[in-house]
Amino acid sequence: MRNFLDLAALPREEVLELLALARRLQEQPEPTALAGRILGLLFFNPSLRTLASMQAAMARLGGQSFVITPGSGSWQLETRVGAVMNGAAAEHIREAIPVLESYCDALGVRAFAEGRDLAVDLAEQGFTAIAGLCRKPLVNLESAMNHPCQALADWKTLDELDVPRHAKFVLSWVNHPRALPLAVPAAALTMAAQRGMEVVVLRPAGFEMPAALIERARALAAAAGGSVTETEDRGAALAGAQVLYAKEWGSTAHYGDAEADARLRAALGDWMVRKSWFEDTAPDCRLLHCLPVRRNVAIADEVLDGPRSAVLAEAANRLYAQMAVLHRLLGTR
Amino acid sequence: MRNFLDLAALPREEVLELLALARRLQEQPEPTALAGRILGLLFFNPSLRTLASMQAAMARLGGQSFVITPGSGSWQLETRVGAVMNGAAAEHIREAIPVLESYCDALGVRAFAEGRDLAVDLAEQGFTAIAGLCRKPLVNLESAMNHPCQALADWKTLDELDVPRHAKFVLSWVNHPRALPLAVPAAALTMAAQRGMEVVVLRPAGFEMPAALIERARALAAAAGGSVTETEDRGAALAGAQVLYAKEWGSTAHYGDAEADARLRAALGDWMVRKSWFEDTAPDCRLLHCLPVRRNVAIADEVLDGPRSAVLAEAANRLYAQMAVLHRLLGTR
Amino acid sequence: MRNFLDLAALPREEVLELLALARRLQEQPEPTALAGRILGLLFFNPSLRTLASMQAAMARLGGQSFVITPGSGSWQLETRVGAVMNGAAAEHIREAIPVLESYCDALGVRAFAEGRDLAVDLAEQGFTAIAGLCRKPLVNLESAMNHPCQALADWKTLDELDVPRHAKFVLSWVNHPRALPLAVPAAALTMAAQRGMEVVVLRPAGFEMPAALIERARALAAAAGGSVTETEDRGAALAGAQVLYAKEWGSTAHYGDAEADARLRAALGDWMVRKSWFEDTAPDCRLLHCLPVRRNVAIADEVLDGPRSAVLAEAANRLYAQMAVLHRLLGTR
Repeated sequence: MRNFLDLAALPREEVLELLALARRLQEQPEPTALAGRILGLLFFNPSLRTLASMQAAMARLGGQSFVITPGSGSWQLETRVGAVMNGAAAEHIREAIPVLESYCDALGVRAFAEGRDLAVDLAEQGFTAIAGLCRKPLVNLESAMNHPCQALADWKTLDELDVPRHAKFVLSWVNHPRALPLAVPAAALTMAAQRGMEVVVLRPAGFEMPAALIERARALAAAAGGSVTETEDRGAALAGAQVLYAKEWGSTAHYGDAEADARLRAALGDWMVRKSWFEDTAPDCRLLHCLPVRRNVAIADEVLDGPRSAVLAEAANRLYAQMAVLHRLLGTR
Repeated sequence: MRNFLDLAALPREEVLELLALARRLQEQPEPTALAGRILGLLFFNPSLRTLASMQAAMARLGGQSFVITPGSGSWQLETRVGAVMNGAAAEHIREAIPVLESYCDALGVRAFAEGRDLAVDLAEQGFTAIAGLCRKPLVNLESAMNHPCQALADWKTLDELDVPRHAKFVLSWVNHPRALPLAVPAAALTMAAQRGMEVVVLRPAGFEMPAALIERARALAAAAGGSVTETEDRGAALAGAQVLYAKEWGSTAHYGDAEADARLRAALGDWMVRKSWFEDTAPDCRLLHCLPVRRNVAIADEVLDGPRSAVLAEAANRLYAQMAVLHRLLGTR
Repeated sequence: MRNFLDLAALPREEVLELLALARRLQEQPEPTALAGRILGLLFFNPSLRTLASMQAAMARLGGQSFVITPGSGSWQLETRVGAVMNGAAAEHIREAIPVLESYCDALGVRAFAEGRDLAVDLAEQGFTAIAGLCRKPLVNLESAMNHPCQALADWKTLDELDVPRHAKFVLSWVNHPRALPLAVPAAALTMAAQRGMEVVVLRPAGFEMPAALIERARALAAAAGGSVTETEDRGAALAGAQVLYAKEWGSTAHYGDAEADARLRAALGDWMVRKSWFEDTAPDCRLLHCLPVRRNVAIADEVLDGPRSAVLAEAANRLYAQMAVLHRLLGTR
């Protein structure tokens, strides 16, 4: 494994090896495995879990990290090829990435979607450009349409919750004050399909998953003995579900149009996860969410604070998943 | 010792043990005592000394730290129970604290007073809520009404200055362009009382210490052979004083009312520590201040730059005090 | 070597020893040379390379760092002696520097020029004040008129490019949307002169190097068998040049006058490095630039992306140069 950019790009066996390594490092610490190694962290966007857990993962393995945040203590970075740089950005990624990688053994980069043009974001142009500039191991810490560290932690959490390989996994849209990127729902959809689950995407009209993502997930599901469907029928979706993965995302029908998106979601206040969602047909269904979560907007307190929720275990697994990734990328084999 | 939230909650013997440990670590470094251990640092408010000295304390003992600053690189955090989170805060402390603690061995948190309602701030609702969410060792890096790391460093400094246990300790209000929290004066008052000193709170009308703080300090003083009084008579207060602890704080008579507070302090320009304060009746009196200090507003250059000042030694002791706290919380006994 | 404030203050032999140490540490890592040592980093201004490479340099040698950024997470700092501090700055460097140095083994400080009064900036009043307050080893991470870490990395890069000691070195002004400090051009001029090169400063009228800097460079060049001249004739300057060091800086004729500076540079759009600059008379000339660089404003893509450019190797050398400096300052000899 040279990079960690996309969980779906890894053969199933390699994912299972990473998960086994994550469990081993959780139980049998290796506090000097990465002694003397350095992780560079480049955050174009805010972070709590990723920022803390990546530094903790390196430290737990004996390494160190440094953090660069363009526009806050460091220069704003230009990404467009051929740009005449007479604006706010003082440096181009064509310099910044090679320079930063020269100071470390692996680089982690977080670069959210632009959120203007769905085709552009689906093409992962920004992250692909960064990856093309980096010759050291690179870790995707959330790109326009992916979040493989989250996906690996999610898979580990499903295993720990004893969710069977082919169980029903509902990825449900939930409300939020504004449009959020598709990275996490895309990664969760892909991960569940790759794991072989019966995946149902539950979302209101206007928030359909992009066809390209559904198709990729279906191909992965087919190979793993699972399936992928989409619906806006909550009752049908949740019937027999063993996992509800709640997530906010922006309208795909009005991608990049904040006003149209807001009009649509104004009528969707009942897309907040409540106890009543589960009572009849999914009594043992567990709740996952990548966090941060808007309490009482996306998910009600009664669910987050109840026994159904596994969101804290899920977040805790970020540490172990990333320790495995870093160990694989940087440890001597 | 499971947490370090309040110096006054520790039995005198435990404080003396921490001070002895701080001195020992200063003289006999233990550069690998906390090897492999991780300190999480959550700063809701700005910091220079605490931010630098906590990281340095972990590093001096062989551990590492990570820093999260909500609202600057990390999500703004909601603290209100039951809040409908449709505002600026993207995450609730009910998730953020358990998640962060899962990435580290101990957590340090700085969360200033809201400064609106004195009763709310005296109740330490914010910090108590955070403490209730954290199962790992927690260090108070300044809360609404406390700053135990500062208090421990202050006690160590008094010992090093050979200030007798029952000496006269004057906590004096000094001026500042705006209302500041009561955390440090409350902690200094409590520490001096707990040490057994003759404590005099010197302040103009409108800046009285809250009765609850005075009462707690009196109980501690009584147990330690000291006393606590309040006055606005500077001459009487300073007569025979061996320590002047200068500190700015907001009006308690007009708590949360910035305009009324400003009107009051506009007439209090002479509440700036000068040489003349000491000349007649307190020639050997030493000056302490937690820093940062507004030169020539709170304390004149002539005092800060003179031999009376021990503010730099006091700040340097933050490192050793915190090394002792971290060693006690995280070291194998 | 007690501090690292100015490369020109070091005897040639000491510079050569630092360069040899940098090469040795690059080839033969010493991952525990600075185990247990702490570097404090105080950044008054933004940074990418310096921020990342200083932390990486400490980590590569087994030490740790902490970062303080006044005005962003830490208090704004006052620098004026005798100031009545009733403005935005909460703390004076007279406290901040001694306090921070008490938490570390060496301190690195970045403090750009004020850019208002050339004489004030040439006098390095700000950095000199900071240096006077610091008793621990101090590293200049860019001051008003100096950047010795950059200069040392540049010298190392010239050696690696096999640029002869007395080769022709052209320091050329290039365009930028606004006035930038003189620190890097001053440091490059001085370094090249100290190395013994045939130094030509190429700049349009209004952007002359201050006489004091030229005089200092000439004295260094004379001692090292080199020379220093100034011109605005690009063809003459580049004829036979083996190195073009491109750099942006503000008008010295209108120092501190942003409008006059802008009027001057509006007509200087052709001061962007292009392939055509080199074609006739300097075919083998290499390009250096300290970065960050405005692509297609200061230097055209066709040059930055071509084989002439050594800017990435130059930036990578920051790490090794600074490892040598830290090793010399903090390592046991």
